[in-house]
Amino acid sequence: MTDRMPVSPGDLLGDGVFETMHLRPDGPWLLDAHLLRLARSAALLEMPAPVAARDRVTEAAVGTGAMRIIYTRSGLLHASVSAIPPAVLRERRDGIRVISAGLGVSAGRRPPWDISAAKSLSYASNFAARRWAARQGADDLIWLSTEGYALEAPTASVVWLTGDTLCTVPPSSAAILPGITAAHLLSVAPSVGLHAVERMVTLPELAAADAIWLASSVRGLAEVISLDGVSRARSPWTPRLLELLGF
Amino acid sequence: MTDRMPVSPGDLLGDGVFETMHLRPDGPWLLDAHLLRLARSAALLEMPAPVAARDRVTEAAVGTGAMRIIYTRSGLLHASVSAIPPAVLRERRDGIRVISAGLGVSAGRRPPWDISAAKSLSYASNFAARRWAARQGADDLIWLSTEGYALEAPTASVVWLTGDTLCTVPPSSAAILPGITAAHLLSVAPSVGLHAVERMVTLPELAAADAIWLASSVRGLAEVISLDGVSRARSPWTPRLLELLGF
Repeated sequence: MTDRMPVSPGDLLGDGVFETMHLRPDGPWLLDAHLLRLARSAALLEMPAPVAARDRVTEAAVGTGAMRIIYTRSGLLHASVSAIPPAVLRERRDGIRVISAGLGVSAGRRPPWDISAAKSLSYASNFAARRWAARQGADDLIWLSTEGYALEAPTASVVWLTGDTLCTVPPSSAAILPGITAAHLLSVAPSVGLHAVERMVTLPELAAADAIWLASSVRGLAEVISLDGVSRARSPWTPRLLELLGF
Repeated sequence: MTDRMPVSPGDLLGDGVFETMHLRPDGPWLLDAHLLRLARSAALLEMPAPVAARDRVTEAAVGTGAMRIIYTRSGLLHASVSAIPPAVLRERRDGIRVISAGLGVSAGRRPPWDISAAKSLSYASNFAARRWAARQGADDLIWLSTEGYALEAPTASVVWLTGDTLCTVPPSSAAILPGITAAHLLSVAPSVGLHAVERMVTLPELAAADAIWLASSVRGLAEVISLDGVSRARSPWTPRLLELLGF
């Protein structure tokens, strides 16, 4: 896809925010929530509100795929659509092998300028973490705090089911990005008879859950079919929850 | 300065490396060391070697100022020159008020995919840290590990003088970016009668030093004239070391 735009060198220093959405036939999925998070991310980086974001998205929303909107400190605001990579579709259908790894930070000890709650353009560490996971033979990884809490994946939220309770990690306690897909899933969980709870979870607690998923906008839900090398039975809830999310 | 280049949206995700050099009348200062670090940063991010980097720098090296070379995962390799901001010149001449702040990470507990030793384009946290310092009324800040060791500044290395020993933080032990200006300064220190040592330093040890500087390519040396609100006497070594570095 040739979708090139003129930028200044300063635009390339990861100093901005972005969102990725699932562009469906009826428009970008959960658009309002994504625009709200874009604005909150910008505020966390002390950037002006991205007032033209909805217009940019509307102009670019042609067809279906993965829609990304980027907003840099210089004021560049750009939306584009790309095809969903086959690997993403495969992981949604077949599940993923995940490993856990310490992030080296404490959930409660972030610096005062911490921008973990913003979806910033500084994604080199996220990509490096996923490359590392791939070298270990895994599809993705779950970051652990120094206290041993599961936090998030480099590009996804952690969701798990224990009995009839669907859980995710509380973003404010964990100092992680608030996941839009996970929050939406928990908000609609009662419609299929599940309770919804946000709580911190240790790795052993997570491993003991009935099912685990990584939730994100384009992949939707990818079921964790092995965690740290231990295979997990497929959950009958995976197709039901995917359907609930419109996948 | 209108120096715009066409990029793809993926180029804006901070997934690449860069260098900033002091472009002097006789060319980019310490060019070989900067090109070597660019290549090492690229290797840490598992990118191909930036083979055309020297050519790009040579083509762009017109006049004097701050020269930046950027290299992204898509293969974009771009060098440009901008004017040195007046604040940088002022800080080199008048010194800086610095505060210390915990980074929330352990020097010895970085994750296996850690890219702290690479000068990556993911600079949003560095900028956020400097904005936070400015809000506290400071010019810059020094990051501390959870163990209380001084690590580095968001865009500079820490250098200090105790007696006739000039010190900086060992990059490999501290898991920080290897500072080119600091390393060069220590390598030439014997020519002015100073010993040179790399060692870890706690904040109280640093505060007890005879002089402290932040070292970087364009600012050169900025003397720390106050640390955490405590004023420090100007060191007679500041002009001597600046001269030694050609400033």
